[in-house]
Amino acid sequence: MDAGDHPPRNHGRNKIPSPWFFFCREDCAMIAMGAIQTMYHDFKPIAGRPLYIQVKEYIRQQIVKGTFQGGQKLPSTRELSLLLNVSRNSVISAYESLTDDGYAYTVQGQGSFVSATVVHGQDGSAEDAGWRLDWSQRLSREARLAEELDIMKHGVRAERGTISFTSIAPDESLFDLENVKRAFLARMAVEGHVLLNYGYAKGYKPLLDYLRQYMEQKGVDLDGKDLLITNGFTEGFDLVLSALGRKHGAVLCENPTHHTALKNMRLHGLEVCGVPMGADGIDLAALEASLKQRAYDWAYLIPSYHNPTGIVTSPEKRHVLMKLMAAYQVPVIEDGFNEELRYSGSHVAPLIAAAGSGNGVIYLGSFSKVLFPGLRVGWVLADKDLIYYLESVKRARSIHTSTLDQSILYQYLLGGNLEKYLRRARTEYKRKYELTLACCKQYLPDAAVSGDGGLHLFVTFPEGFSTRELLMACKAQGVIFTLGEMFFTDGTGQNTLRLGFSRVSDENIRKGIEIIGNAATRLRNGRGNGQC
Amino acid sequence: MDAGDHPPRNHGRNKIPSPWFFFCREDCAMIAMGAIQTMYHDFKPIAGRPLYIQVKEYIRQQIVKGTFQGGQKLPSTRELSLLLNVSRNSVISAYESLTDDGYAYTVQGQGSFVSATVVHGQDGSAEDAGWRLDWSQRLSREARLAEELDIMKHGVRAERGTISFTSIAPDESLFDLENVKRAFLARMAVEGHVLLNYGYAKGYKPLLDYLRQYMEQKGVDLDGKDLLITNGFTEGFDLVLSALGRKHGAVLCENPTHHTALKNMRLHGLEVCGVPMGADGIDLAALEASLKQRAYDWAYLIPSYHNPTGIVTSPEKRHVLMKLMAAYQVPVIEDGFNEELRYSGSHVAPLIAAAGSGNGVIYLGSFSKVLFPGLRVGWVLADKDLIYYLESVKRARSIHTSTLDQSILYQYLLGGNLEKYLRRARTEYKRKYELTLACCKQYLPDAAVSGDGGLHLFVTFPEGFSTRELLMACKAQGVIFTLGEMFFTDGTGQNTLRLGFSRVSDENIRKGIEIIGNAATRLRNGRGNGQC
Repeated sequence: MDAGDHPPRNHGRNKIPSPWFFFCREDCAMIAMGAIQTMYHDFKPIAGRPLYIQVKEYIRQQIVKGTFQGGQKLPSTRELSLLLNVSRNSVISAYESLTDDGYAYTVQGQGSFVSATVVHGQDGSAEDAGWRLDWSQRLSREARLAEELDIMKHGVRAERGTISFTSIAPDESLFDLENVKRAFLARMAVEGHVLLNYGYAKGYKPLLDYLRQYMEQKGVDLDGKDLLITNGFTEGFDLVLSALGRKHGAVLCENPTHHTALKNMRLHGLEVCGVPMGADGIDLAALEASLKQRAYDWAYLIPSYHNPTGIVTSPEKRHVLMKLMAAYQVPVIEDGFNEELRYSGSHVAPLIAAAGSGNGVIYLGSFSKVLFPGLRVGWVLADKDLIYYLESVKRARSIHTSTLDQSILYQYLLGGNLEKYLRRARTEYKRKYELTLACCKQYLPDAAVSGDGGLHLFVTFPEGFSTRELLMACKAQGVIFTLGEMFFTDGTGQNTLRLGFSRVSDENIRKGIEIIGNAATRLRNGRGNGQC
Repeated sequence: MDAGDHPPRNHGRNKIPSPWFFFCREDCAMIAMGAIQTMYHDFKPIAGRPLYIQVKEYIRQQIVKGTFQGGQKLPSTRELSLLLNVSRNSVISAYESLTDDGYAYTVQGQGSFVSATVVHGQDGSAEDAGWRLDWSQRLSREARLAEELDIMKHGVRAERGTISFTSIAPDESLFDLENVKRAFLARMAVEGHVLLNYGYAKGYKPLLDYLRQYMEQKGVDLDGKDLLITNGFTEGFDLVLSALGRKHGAVLCENPTHHTALKNMRLHGLEVCGVPMGADGIDLAALEASLKQRAYDWAYLIPSYHNPTGIVTSPEKRHVLMKLMAAYQVPVIEDGFNEELRYSGSHVAPLIAAAGSGNGVIYLGSFSKVLFPGLRVGWVLADKDLIYYLESVKRARSIHTSTLDQSILYQYLLGGNLEKYLRRARTEYKRKYELTLACCKQYLPDAAVSGDGGLHLFVTFPEGFSTRELLMACKAQGVIFTLGEMFFTDGTGQNTLRLGFSRVSDENIRKGIEIIGNAATRLRNGRGNGQC
């Protein structure tokens, strides 16, 4: 409806009784005519929301603002329907709902009246309690540091039209919405009431069972191990960091490593010691040297499609690595990131499979990057005694993960949709991966490029080259990427960058990398600053 | 299909060539005949999952277990289809999928072979890395305390057939699944791709806008305030507790108070000081005495349908309360718990509305108890500078709340379904509330009962009476309730209990409270222990 389509307003004195005249006669002390006009003119209904609720909210707003006061009579339903140009039924329903909510009451034969709803001070003013605090003086170290390390706030932002290589989120045009819808409807039909009520901290049972099998199929010995569902990888990692005690206060990881993990380890006040990456995974000699030097509480590792280098640690190296960690009794938090996104080569089992019957690995899994990041579902697979405690920490933190998300994911997986989707996604990502790699070779001939698949490549320029300067030059030409330095534990990596290609079109991959390449050449030739 | 419906197995030597004979002839070194029988007999397909995936998983399991070794030829598609009694197409698809995943490879004209997939040690054993840790020695204080305070682990459990008054979750038979389904499909149609990809830490924009309006309608002055969506109340509370600094290390709350909040304040290492409740909310004289005595970082308050007493603080008292907190500069974390569930009386505005233009209140809202706990959506409304930091803490903890949950909730609310649902729910809960109250008066004549609505009542027996003994007696007769003592900050409340009635039938409310009453009478008369 058009809210401007009101009956003509009453300007000045009426010759004949009119609806707004009746209103005015009955409640003339209430609001002057001008106020009425102003008042009802600003009722602008929107589409998609029942009209009676919009009428109710409109009147409620006047009550809350104090335009209508406690004990005051509301316009009759007939009057209001004319004033707002809505059906009388809408007004009747609106008044009923206001009465339900305690904003109004009905007197038989007399109409609806405003309840004595006290919102602000009894003198009608809110100022008496309007005291102000300086919250910036009341923040914890964690809050300040979380803000400081928040790259969404301090990182480079893509403006419209920018070619952005910053994202490693999946390409949403690959999502098969129909199967997600089907999964939802199927699950709702089976147990809709259960899905919408409280679930269990540990997770939705059918999904837990499914994931147990799923992990067993990856070669994991489940004996003595258990699973916990979390709000994605990030919550899982945070729960593990909270649940593990600190004897040494220091932890190991690959250098570079996933910046969110790095941020969260720092938020937990841990000393993070990075071990350099080799071409086929963590440098084992450097790792052993670090292990000899001092004691660590645990190590955080990303053995597949390592973020940011994209390297897949070979199966042989995984075994040597696990033996080393066992020898030094340093447990491993394994980030199963994008394990599913292999394009070629043999299947590589996760470290937790290589650990056999041992319980030294805590595995964090998620389908977010592979399937749908919007569904916040991840899982922790670890020793069952540890999961027992993690379950209580999870319950204290967020009760449980959305049952709806879990059930949709379960039904989607059960129906065999992951396989179908992966087939399509791998083909698409493989093509983009190969294109990005070829473009890097063509336009960045002096840079070393790593990445065995996944959704990104990592580029290392010669020592002394500044990717921050490169980014400034490229941004001026509408291309952005992620600075590699934010992945490094020791403040190095100024000559590196990460290229996420999953959401960039083929044309823009070519165009973008050419721009990066030309800018890099200019920078090396000392011209810099993105001027063509 | 029936997995028992296999072709007859090959016992001993064959006279005529048969499919499994061919299999045996080509790969006779592989597995002895007995092993084949055992092997393929345990293939038991389930319904609802594509058969080819089940075949794939079956073969993958044999590869991972080492039954099929790297380089070994897999049975031909024809052979396997006969052995497993599935269509040949299913086997072809299974082999394709195994190849996609890197478990197998195809040699043109020769068939499919197992990839050199190394799962366990190169010697085939996992024992080399099978080192075991004692995780119980590696837990943080938080993990231990979270387990210790976890009432789901240490509270009383309902056995089948028990009349349980422990839950204050909504009655799921009231859920209107059809409108939830409609909301999901409507939102998916509008922006399904967006919903399934990454969202924003702050929340889903349409829901944020809706909630802003919703809170404004409750009388909140939004100027200088902002909103953050969380995984329900619990995550919201945890984020706020993490983000607020500690100057004094002590906080105020009502005594008794919500046990989850109490647990979480203790997990955060805070000294919790409880102020007694009066009949109409917190005892203001006692509050002022506490405020005079020492300094506090903040106060946690539940002004409506207080958990566990069920008391609604009167509007007048809210204003005096806010003036007091302003005078002592102690900000308030307001738990908006079940504010929507009023059955009678005027609308009562939240404290954050009473605070007017002030920024001293952090409001935590959720529809969980009113609508669907399974959708984990809550919100924090507070000073915008504080929300700015909370957003970064939220991002570090869990990236963002499920966009699907948020979008379903938004569409459900937009469509006016909350009003329709509340109308039905209030009628039902009001009836149960009145019945429970009447039964308490009839069967527990010596106990004081509080609760102005909501989903529970709080019962206080005379000093010296033990509700723990009462619970033991009642449990023996199939009735359980929540011990009041777990809500108290100071170890008192041994003579109290909470009765949640939302999920108990009328008949069981009557029966259950009669049993409690009779057991209480026996206990007071010194007979105890639940013997009839």
